[in-house]
Formats: sequence, structure tokens, C-alpha cells
Amino acid sequence: MPKIVDHDERRLELVGATWRIIARLGIESATMREIATEAGFANGALKPYFPTKDTLLTFAFSHVFNRTNDRIAEVTAGKSGIAALRAFCLEVLPLDEERVSEARIVIPFWQKAINDPEKAAIHQESMEQWQAAIVRHLAEARKNGDVSAAADDRVIAGHLLNMLLGAQIAAALAAEGQPDLRLADQLESFLDLLAK
Amino acid sequence: MPKIVDHDERRLELVGATWRIIARLGIESATMREIATEAGFANGALKPYFPTKDTLLTFAFSHVFNRTNDRIAEVTAGKSGIAALRAFCLEVLPLDEERVSEARIVIPFWQKAINDPEKAAIHQESMEQWQAAIVRHLAEARKNGDVSAAADDRVIAGHLLNMLLGAQIAAALAAEGQPDLRLADQLESFLDLLAK
Repeated sequence: MPKIVDHDERRLELVGATWRIIARLGIESATMREIATEAGFANGALKPYFPTKDTLLTFAFSHVFNRTNDRIAEVTAGKSGIAALRAFCLEVLPLDEERVSEARIVIPFWQKAINDPEKAAIHQESMEQWQAAIVRHLAEARKNGDVSAAADDRVIAGHLLNMLLGAQIAAALAAEGQPDLRLADQLESFLDLLAK
Repeated sequence: MPKIVDHDERRLELVGATWRIIARLGIESATMREIATEAGFANGALKPYFPTKDTLLTFAFSHVFNRTNDRIAEVTAGKSGIAALRAFCLEVLPLDEERVSEARIVIPFWQKAINDPEKAAIHQESMEQWQAAIVRHLAEARKNGDVSAAADDRVIAGHLLNMLLGAQIAAALAAEGQPDLRLADQLESFLDLLAK
């Protein structure tokens, strides 16, 4: 079914173009016309794929989430407990330019989700998935004796998840040449605290 | 100088109206006309105060930040160390409807700051102020023997700050009737970890 594959590829090209335009101009200035031009599409050719900017943004967000999950699956393969938790968090933290660009897609999505229950539900679902993964790794770590914190693992997971979300904002809004945010150190010191 | 006071009051009325409109419609659908109507202003009467929606959003953000700082000053007065740190964080966390509304102002501001260095600088400055306050309270807590974590206090402060930012997103995007986010528990368990 080569036609379907083509469509998927074109959608991904459009997501790539959307990213570049949003990174350059911001979500509000990114028009469908500019995204089409950036992707080498005629203006009207976008409509069959994404009838509105909103559907494109939702697709781009889902794509970021899926891509992050693919990377998480890769780096946590064969790991459990603290090692898996560390690999998971290091993958979510915006530690390179690619992931800072992803943060710049995710923040406009969050902003829209504030008044759009459907988008908020997509965010919720993603967070529940990650919360469950963190809780699972914490349980494994407790079995190994690597975590002995008194708190409920769901509370620890919620805390860690909030820290990972906040790190997206810190990285997306960091000025060029600003001192290093030390996000990896923040994670490491937290894992240290859990082990004590 | 009653005229100046009037202008300040009118600005605050407008910020109040802006909040209500943004909470109801979202930042993108909030037009200057609707904000004027909500505040009981004639349409053109907004211009002398806020020539654009952008200036209004920046003022609203600064107002949220100042208001939060006023409340922080109140609740931390006479406190130091962990007690001050706890009071500080409990004030920043979106634990009631008023502060969830504030989060709904702050997220659109962040989104705009991604491509607006002036807004990003306002955010940076605010965060540096808070980072310094947290570091100060951690130093006091170490003196009292209430914190013995091995990590650099600037790293701990950065972590805590990111958690506080992430909590704004979690709260602003929470669905009605969703289980409690347990943000206060997240803070308490972190303070517990620092003391160990």
C-alpha cells in the first residue's frame, strides 16, 4: 500500500517543516502558508493532511510524544530500577538542541490545552503513561534496595514528572549563552536523595 | 495625585477582566474588545493603558509575579530555613482556584516568551530572584542541621524551581473531577528527602 506510506511520509515532512517554522517564528506567526512553503508544498496541498493549524499542532505534539517514547524504549531496554529511571528521565530532559526544539512544540500545545479539553486529555493520557512507568521503575528499585524514601511512589513520580515538565520551560526559555541549567545534575541529586 | 492612583486601579481592573476572559476563552480568543467589555470600558478606552494585547499580557504576568511575591513576603515573614522554604513553595504551588487561574496567565506568557527575548528576560529575572531565595533558605536550613543533602544548593534550588513550574502546567491542564495532584505531598516528601 505505497499510497498510505506516502501520506505518512508527507505528514512527517510537514511536522518537520512545522517545527522549523515554529522554532523560527513562534506558533502564532507560523501560518499554514509558510509551513507549506517550508515543506515545499503548494499552499492548498496541506488541507488534505491537516485541515487546520490546530490539527497540525496536535499531530506534531503526538509525534514528539511518540518519538520520545521510542527513544525511551531504546535506552531503557534491558534496564530496570534506578538505571531504567535514570535513562527514562535523561531522555525526557531537554539536554540537546533537538529536544529543546521539541519543548518549543510542547509548550504551545499546553497553552492550547488550557482551553481545549480534547488536547488536555491527550496531555493527561501521556502523563499517566509516564507516571505509570516511573512508578514501575521505583517499585523495581525498592526491590533492589536502591530506593528507601518514605514517600508514596505515586507522589515521588508526580514530583519527578513535574520537574521534567518544568525543565521543558526552563530550556525553551533559556537565553543563548546562559549558564548551563544543570538539568542532569538535578536529576542525579534527586536519585541520590531517593537512595538515602 | 488621585489621577495616577486612578490609572493604576484601572490597569488592575483590566488585568482582572483579562484573567476572567482568558480563563473563559483562552488567550487566543481573548480580544481587546471582549476584555474592554468585561471591564466595563468603551472599546477605544483600553488603548491608553495597553496599546496591544501583548503589553496587556506582559503586565498581567508581571502582576501575577508581584502578587505572588507579596504573598510570599507575608507567609515567610519571621521564618527561615525549611519553614521559610516550605512557606515559599506552598505559596507558589497552584493549590487553590486563584493560583490555578494565575497559572493560566503564566503559561501563555511562557509560550510567547519562547520567541520574544524581552519576555524571556522577564521570566529569567523572576526565576533568578526565586532561585536566590531558595538558595538562601537552604543555606539557613543547613546551618540549623535541617538539610544534609550532598548536592550543590543551586542544583537543589533549580530542581525545586522546575518542579514548581511543572506544577503550574499540571494544575492548569487538570480536568475537572480529576484525582488530587497531591502537590503539597510532593513538596513535603522532597523536604523530607533533603533532611535525611
